[in-house]
Amino acid sequence: MAEELSHYKVREALCERLRDMYAHGWATGTGGGISARVGDEVILAPTSVHKERVQPSDFSVKKLGGAYLEQPFKASQCTPIFEAIMQVRDAGAVAHSHGIYPVRAADLAGRKPYLTIAGLEMLKGVKDCKNDQAHHVPVINNAPEEDQLTSVVRKALTDPMSAKAYCVLVRNHGAYIWGKDIDEAKRHLEIYHFLFEAVWGRALGRALKLGSR
Amino acid sequence: MAEELSHYKVREALCERLRDMYAHGWATGTGGGISARVGDEVILAPTSVHKERVQPSDFSVKKLGGAYLEQPFKASQCTPIFEAIMQVRDAGAVAHSHGIYPVRAADLAGRKPYLTIAGLEMLKGVKDCKNDQAHHVPVINNAPEEDQLTSVVRKALTDPMSAKAYCVLVRNHGAYIWGKDIDEAKRHLEIYHFLFEAVWGRALGRALKLGSR
Amino acid sequence: MAEELSHYKVREALCERLRDMYAHGWATGTGGGISARVGDEVILAPTSVHKERVQPSDFSVKKLGGAYLEQPFKASQCTPIFEAIMQVRDAGAVAHSHGIYPVRAADLAGRKPYLTIAGLEMLKGVKDCKNDQAHHVPVINNAPEEDQLTSVVRKALTDPMSAKAYCVLVRNHGAYIWGKDIDEAKRHLEIYHFLFEAVWGRALGRALKLGSR
Amino acid sequence: MAEELSHYKVREALCERLRDMYAHGWATGTGGGISARVGDEVILAPTSVHKERVQPSDFSVKKLGGAYLEQPFKASQCTPIFEAIMQVRDAGAVAHSHGIYPVRAADLAGRKPYLTIAGLEMLKGVKDCKNDQAHHVPVINNAPEEDQLTSVVRKALTDPMSAKAYCVLVRNHGAYIWGKDIDEAKRHLEIYHFLFEAVWGRALGRALKLGSR
Repeated sequence: MAEELSHYKVREALCERLRDMYAHGWATGTGGGISARVGDEVILAPTSVHKERVQPSDFSVKKLGGAYLEQPFKASQCTPIFEAIMQVRDAGAVAHSHGIYPVRAADLAGRKPYLTIAGLEMLKGVKDCKNDQAHHVPVINNAPEEDQLTSVVRKALTDPMSAKAYCVLVRNHGAYIWGKDIDEAKRHLEIYHFLFEAVWGRALGRALKLGSR
Repeated sequence: MAEELSHYKVREALCERLRDMYAHGWATGTGGGISARVGDEVILAPTSVHKERVQPSDFSVKKLGGAYLEQPFKASQCTPIFEAIMQVRDAGAVAHSHGIYPVRAADLAGRKPYLTIAGLEMLKGVKDCKNDQAHHVPVINNAPEEDQLTSVVRKALTDPMSAKAYCVLVRNHGAYIWGKDIDEAKRHLEIYHFLFEAVWGRALGRALKLGSR
Repeated sequence: MAEELSHYKVREALCERLRDMYAHGWATGTGGGISARVGDEVILAPTSVHKERVQPSDFSVKKLGGAYLEQPFKASQCTPIFEAIMQVRDAGAVAHSHGIYPVRAADLAGRKPYLTIAGLEMLKGVKDCKNDQAHHVPVINNAPEEDQLTSVVRKALTDPMSAKAYCVLVRNHGAYIWGKDIDEAKRHLEIYHFLFEAVWGRALGRALKLGSR
Repeated sequence: MAEELSHYKVREALCERLRDMYAHGWATGTGGGISARVGDEVILAPTSVHKERVQPSDFSVKKLGGAYLEQPFKASQCTPIFEAIMQVRDAGAVAHSHGIYPVRAADLAGRKPYLTIAGLEMLKGVKDCKNDQAHHVPVINNAPEEDQLTSVVRKALTDPMSAKAYCVLVRNHGAYIWGKDIDEAKRHLEIYHFLFEAVWGRALGRALKLGSR
């Protein structure tokens, strides 16, 4: 998709995603971020700014795994993670959510390396995922600086157990969620946030045995 | 109602409903759907697209229980279910919600074939329902593919216990909600989602004995 | 206030309130309602319609406690309750909320005739109420038909225990909330809904002893 | 920042913040407030009005710690607190939240003089705060009148334990949150409200042992 849109349209689409992420509570307090790939170039939202205010001219551009072509603002610390996901999973767009349900979902996983989600139709919204199979989302520990997560994210991306996941959860932090293009990343953002909220509420309901009353 | 509006106005009204359903969290991640009947023709929203972006020209049209007249996009897997509800209950509009509270409400029902709702004024928002009678909403099991639900939905629709329900809950999945026209389907959508959220919160409150403190 | 505005401006202000009430979830599914007094005339929103769509020409007008002057649509069943509150409490505007937190707040009261709220700064948003005094909101039982509540509401309005309340809670149903004019009714709507949500969450927190961890 | 903008632009930015605070539920029912410093002058939103309706001409202006230069409406009772935070912490903008999560967060602190927050990436959204250090937010008791809080706020501001906090929580009431300018105050508003909601939900999850299931 990305190659068919002009760079400008991609930037506009990313701005729209950021406004939407802010409205959903996934990119408040300048947190969160987004990037897209156009051919071998990566378009990156600026860091440390109010994400819902980002304009098309605010994005940095760099060669995937290479040098910056444009850098009007400080590059996101997430950049190596975004690039790793693009390289290892051939993602066309990667979002970073600072939502509250990714944090709660990672809490649910406890010390396990995966959050296992099953028994929810919305699993079908994850590419190639079925509603009668367990879906394993890798959960990694947070680090003091975001770029320190890169090697751990890379490892999670190649783990066969989480091969079908389009998301990496980071404990106490949030989630990286991606797709082959911006629209699939949007779908996966909405699907995973639904799933995380659903499993948290279901865990609460089970703890209080609501279903048996 | 549907017959008095032109096809185009019906499509516009369905687009408005889809945007509203998205905003309420009932049709995120490309989930959910909607359809309306105009005479003996059924107008169907496309599947696998971001529902809030659907435009009037995106709808398919088919004879009720018959052949497609227009099909610009892949037909929804819900189509036979929408048609079953139109045929058995004479519905003029049927929506499919992927909201989180239908899933929680179905959880509350446990293995019972109905969710029984009582003691809430908003029950009066369901056509011909009173606030001092128990209302039984049928709950069916989910299936790997949506069209596999059709026969079970048909059976639920003719079950005398749920004769007054304008909703079928699908475990782990969501709900089909309908009305004689788009406006009544809108009312029922809002009413049932309110009821599902209310009974879930009430179950939580009872489990923790909040009312006695 | 009401007398200084033309009838038309009052109707526009009521439409704005209804859209706002819908957006807050206090008037969904055609539930809820609103009315204002202009001199000895009462302006009433129509019943059984989607409240966020109400237009200025849709309102009925009647003499307070007297005959209808205009009645383009069916009069609300709440009318005698709205009038009782205007007569007994000299209210200039009365809203009827079908929100979820009034229902939960009434649940908290159990069988007691009052919900007692204390220890919240937002109590100061209720006219003449202080943050270091307990505030008693009367809670009455629901009835099959709304107009059957009138005499019970009248009794609650003259009960000395709830003399400082600008709200009557109806179990399983919602709340009547008023003010001397539309703006004060708006403030009270927001304040009481905040208080109801706050006390419900606080009861939950206390039940689980969250504060001591 | 403030000095670079004209007074009028500061007022417009404050109006935008108030509308945003209202939309987030932090300034409903006429509650909450905001102020900014331009050089040695303080610009103050009016009290007792619907905050989302405030217009640029509605603000009062006074010398920091001195006399009023303009006062179209009654001055906020928060004024001495806003000034104390500007003086002691060199804040350029101070907001007062009447949100529900500041109240719940203060409940979590119990009788302790601080709410300690740790293990959340969003802590990095607080200026100079790291995600691997505990963050201490001072919690003070409420008082019948807001200006009675001033000396207690002053004391909290100079307490070494809470030296890195850009927030003072007031039990049963809300929070004062600030930054070096309006944009930083906006970031801190969003960050602290996220943190309060996160710790409340986490406490709930821990009480019910959700993580170990």
